[in-house]
Amino acid sequence: MAGAPAPIAVSMGDPAGIGPEVVAKAWEARHRRALPPFVAVGDARAIARVWRGPIAVVSDLDAAARAFPEALPVLTVEDGGEITPGQPDLEGARCALHALELATGLVREGAARALVTGPVSKARLYAAGFIHPGQTEFVAERCGVARDNAVMMLAGPSLKVVPLTVHVPLAAVSGLLTPALIGGKARVVARALRRDFGIDAPRLAFAGLNPHAGEDGALGREELEVIAPAIADLVAEGIDARGPFAADTLFHARARDGYDAVLCPYHDQALVPLKTLHFDDGVNVTLGLPIVRTSPDHGTAFGIAGQDRADPASTIAAVLMAGAMADRRAAA
Amino acid sequence: MAGAPAPIAVSMGDPAGIGPEVVAKAWEARHRRALPPFVAVGDARAIARVWRGPIAVVSDLDAAARAFPEALPVLTVEDGGEITPGQPDLEGARCALHALELATGLVREGAARALVTGPVSKARLYAAGFIHPGQTEFVAERCGVARDNAVMMLAGPSLKVVPLTVHVPLAAVSGLLTPALIGGKARVVARALRRDFGIDAPRLAFAGLNPHAGEDGALGREELEVIAPAIADLVAEGIDARGPFAADTLFHARARDGYDAVLCPYHDQALVPLKTLHFDDGVNVTLGLPIVRTSPDHGTAFGIAGQDRADPASTIAAVLMAGAMADRRAAA
Repeated sequence: MAGAPAPIAVSMGDPAGIGPEVVAKAWEARHRRALPPFVAVGDARAIARVWRGPIAVVSDLDAAARAFPEALPVLTVEDGGEITPGQPDLEGARCALHALELATGLVREGAARALVTGPVSKARLYAAGFIHPGQTEFVAERCGVARDNAVMMLAGPSLKVVPLTVHVPLAAVSGLLTPALIGGKARVVARALRRDFGIDAPRLAFAGLNPHAGEDGALGREELEVIAPAIADLVAEGIDARGPFAADTLFHARARDGYDAVLCPYHDQALVPLKTLHFDDGVNVTLGLPIVRTSPDHGTAFGIAGQDRADPASTIAAVLMAGAMADRRAAA
Repeated sequence: MAGAPAPIAVSMGDPAGIGPEVVAKAWEARHRRALPPFVAVGDARAIARVWRGPIAVVSDLDAAARAFPEALPVLTVEDGGEITPGQPDLEGARCALHALELATGLVREGAARALVTGPVSKARLYAAGFIHPGQTEFVAERCGVARDNAVMMLAGPSLKVVPLTVHVPLAAVSGLLTPALIGGKARVVARALRRDFGIDAPRLAFAGLNPHAGEDGALGREELEVIAPAIADLVAEGIDARGPFAADTLFHARARDGYDAVLCPYHDQALVPLKTLHFDDGVNVTLGLPIVRTSPDHGTAFGIAGQDRADPASTIAAVLMAGAMADRRAAA
């Protein structure tokens, strides 16, 4: 690469979703937003169907880096079928999977310096033989990291949140919450805030599970019996862990000055404030991996694919964040 | 009253909390914010301890209305003890309770046209012999309304939310959620949006209980088995009820254009977005009562009482909302 930084690999996700469009629109913003060089990984035809800008089909990342200023470089992964925006099919799901595999491999071998994954349809991937719950677990396995040690963070300009449990029924959350789960994820978060976000002394705030964080046990005992002991253990290790706090007063502007990330017992408690504040520019970041991996915080949006209506803000934010994280790791 | 509108009765809450200060600061904003006349109900000494403005101790609401332009009118309810900001005691709790009783009675008899209740300490009220869970239930009983038919709404300038369950452990929510509970509260909300907020065809959105609103049953079945059937019943009655929607994508700016209020299965799902967006100017409104009742959306804040640090924005918003609601009822 002769001193130039390696590009970021951006898998395009399902070719019938909005992935190709948002990747192309992100490239259009490369000067205005000072984006680091990236290469799209997926079928170049999927982009050509929805975008009229210049595409450079490349076969290696040196060529991608050279092409980036003047054209969107694409490492093409052929979709066996016809590509129709908004009409997902099995060939498209296979193409998305191959693009993910190729992009992950390029980052693992050091040819690309970070991974940004575009939106896929899990149901379609399963139909194509995919056996992982989602892209995060796939990437974790390819990196040799246990699934529980790959931690999902959602990050916007003014808030970072980590759900301690994710895609489980709400009624199951209390039973899943253990000091081991909380402590394990908190340690990954604290380390990543230092290593990837450059926060020397990260402050972790914990939300309670129950209304008013249980009100001293009157509205639930998980805070007293599980969350507070887990926090005490973290503090004893030298991690700045605080709470548990009542969730409803934890996310307004002044409260957000008091911590660097909030760890929340369940999905909606984390994602409701994040998407209320940062619906368009939130980024999904996987912490705890040997590689840098981010993704836009939206789905395939098949319903608007091919209509030039997709907003690239989250993809732009994901590329910028991946570049900044990779820079910090390289400088460490 | 000779044509002049009756004042709004504002109970000051615990005399050692921030209630007296925020009521006095709200009065200071009467011209700038075009507040309707109100009378503070509580011990005038509690205000004098924390505020140097003009106080007019009055004995009836005619006198209060006349005094309002030049002084803060107070219908005084004597606190038997010494009043020290930040130091709540039993006499103060009794004073708060007497003020609540007097203010509620004035509105019930028509001498005052709406009720705004200041913050109390529930623990202190219980110690003073109070047998209701909170002020809302007390007011409902005095109005002859069954507790379940008095519905709490939190309202800010850009969002109105109604928690379908309130102060219960999170793990208990699933078991409490029934079509009868949902339907009963939704009917109260739909009626109040028309009568009190002037929305002719109110649109109610329902949040799901589980992540992604259960994802067709994969992440929980309450949406399919309880919430969706309740919504179908409401629609059959002619109520514009929608959902259940994934909570995380329900509260950003564009989503908020699509409904007039969101009904949420549990406390934090409603209060997290409301307080994230409207921490300072949210109002707690009790729907379904024969009288208008609002309150500021904060507690006694004993920790900052008497330090001139309390923000009156929520009390100002509560007075404005109570006045507007009373105007709509009077015009109906």
